[in-house]
Amino acid sequence: MVNDLIINFTPTGMIPTKAMTPHVPVGVSEIVEDVLLASEIGITMVHLHARDAVTGMPTYKKEVYGDIIEGIRRYAPELVICVSLSGRDFGELDKRSDPLLLEGNLKPDMGSLTLSSLNFNKTASINAPEMVCSLAALMQEKGIVPELEVFDIGMINYAKYLEKKELIEAPYYFNLLFGNIACSQANLLHSGIMVNDLPEQACWSLAGIGNEQLKMNSLSVAIGGGVRVGLEDNIWYDMARTKLATNAALLKRIHLIANANERDVMSPKDFRLKMNLAPGNGVYGRCK
Amino acid sequence: MVNDLIINFTPTGMIPTKAMTPHVPVGVSEIVEDVLLASEIGITMVHLHARDAVTGMPTYKKEVYGDIIEGIRRYAPELVICVSLSGRDFGELDKRSDPLLLEGNLKPDMGSLTLSSLNFNKTASINAPEMVCSLAALMQEKGIVPELEVFDIGMINYAKYLEKKELIEAPYYFNLLFGNIACSQANLLHSGIMVNDLPEQACWSLAGIGNEQLKMNSLSVAIGGGVRVGLEDNIWYDMARTKLATNAALLKRIHLIANANERDVMSPKDFRLKMNLAPGNGVYGRCK
Repeated sequence: MVNDLIINFTPTGMIPTKAMTPHVPVGVSEIVEDVLLASEIGITMVHLHARDAVTGMPTYKKEVYGDIIEGIRRYAPELVICVSLSGRDFGELDKRSDPLLLEGNLKPDMGSLTLSSLNFNKTASINAPEMVCSLAALMQEKGIVPELEVFDIGMINYAKYLEKKELIEAPYYFNLLFGNIACSQANLLHSGIMVNDLPEQACWSLAGIGNEQLKMNSLSVAIGGGVRVGLEDNIWYDMARTKLATNAALLKRIHLIANANERDVMSPKDFRLKMNLAPGNGVYGRCK
Repeated sequence: MVNDLIINFTPTGMIPTKAMTPHVPVGVSEIVEDVLLASEIGITMVHLHARDAVTGMPTYKKEVYGDIIEGIRRYAPELVICVSLSGRDFGELDKRSDPLLLEGNLKPDMGSLTLSSLNFNKTASINAPEMVCSLAALMQEKGIVPELEVFDIGMINYAKYLEKKELIEAPYYFNLLFGNIACSQANLLHSGIMVNDLPEQACWSLAGIGNEQLKMNSLSVAIGGGVRVGLEDNIWYDMARTKLATNAALLKRIHLIANANERDVMSPKDFRLKMNLAPGNGVYGRCK
């Protein structure tokens, strides 16, 4: 058994609502509870989205992120915490970067950085070059490590460009996401070429949308990569979509598959060492 | 010698200015002159961008496209003419689709359809799903064939989605473009996987940005594909960028390479048969 499996837990996202599934954690305490339960099951990091307390819709506000982070760190201070800086609902830099302003014990370790513009199913997700560079620069200044979000092969090339411009630096963590309709698809050729293109000193996880989540997670466990898993990308437990998933059930299945493959979860502590992150002792982000 | 090489001539584009190169055709008569000269050298189709007569900057206006098309068809009535519907400078559907309103002898055979949002070097190019579907539906209604523009592997998946939704139909023509910084790169793996992913009954050309143009064009000549070539993508003749290219010089070099590979240009007439386009007799677009 090797403890090298990065499990990047994505409990909430921006799309699932209580009407779609009662299991999606939306309120601060619900999210904290799901993350702490996940932490007991075994995860390496969490990718957080916050929701407005009244409407249940996505919010960028640092106060809500701060409340979630505080709740998590009270019991799981080592867990690596990544905040979403998504432009899917909010276009302006000051909104997208708001969670990066959290300080001290509330400071996130990482922030998501989507490396180009793309289309989702119904909408365009706009991440113009200037926005990507500004978010990268801001994270660098604050010692917050980018979670590099890749939806197609060209975005890896853009990461290499940011490296050349010294806006990001190794060691890197990449999410490679498959199965969005206008992006790379969940198959061996698309995933193979993308893993092959990654820069050196890169940790990576594979993610799939909907039914593709299990496929890409299992494939990655088999081949030595990490997994991004949770209700954000997929609300169903089975391919036939007869049974709604819970975050805990999705995580337990990953552990089962991983253990059968002689792999176990990488601890947050080991991931901190690998990514040159502070040890989770009240000072968070990248070591100087 | 086989006459199967599609040469898609791109004389102008949206970026090159007279300050960058005196050889870029910008005015209506300059563009017509370059296209007619290209037609004598040997091309299959032309991908037109129009410019404003006063400013020299890109315009979407059908009147300017109409003047260019009239000038070309007076002497080269068979040439397959594609108009740009780019959203790079103009966001609204009514502007982007304006050239599709041309009728009769001015009606374009084809219109460009970029299949998703993406980033160029400095700016985002936004083609939200609704825009892509609206442009496809409008072209279908008018019997104008989409020139399917692909900058990364996911866009081919989106073409297959449009096919399922019956918004596009075979036979298809694809441009696969390589070398934009946040898109697929000019190498064998990226181009190989994309050609491999194309639907059946697809004609395709490879294009490269800047110095990658010659590389991708030559590769495509070698492997049986078509080429997209012209000052739109590349203003230099040599890799060292010591000598500005002319459209004619770029085309003559392609002919030289093609002939050495025992290939010659596909005539517009043959391409019309292959793409089920009207024969260029005053009625243009796809045969009903």
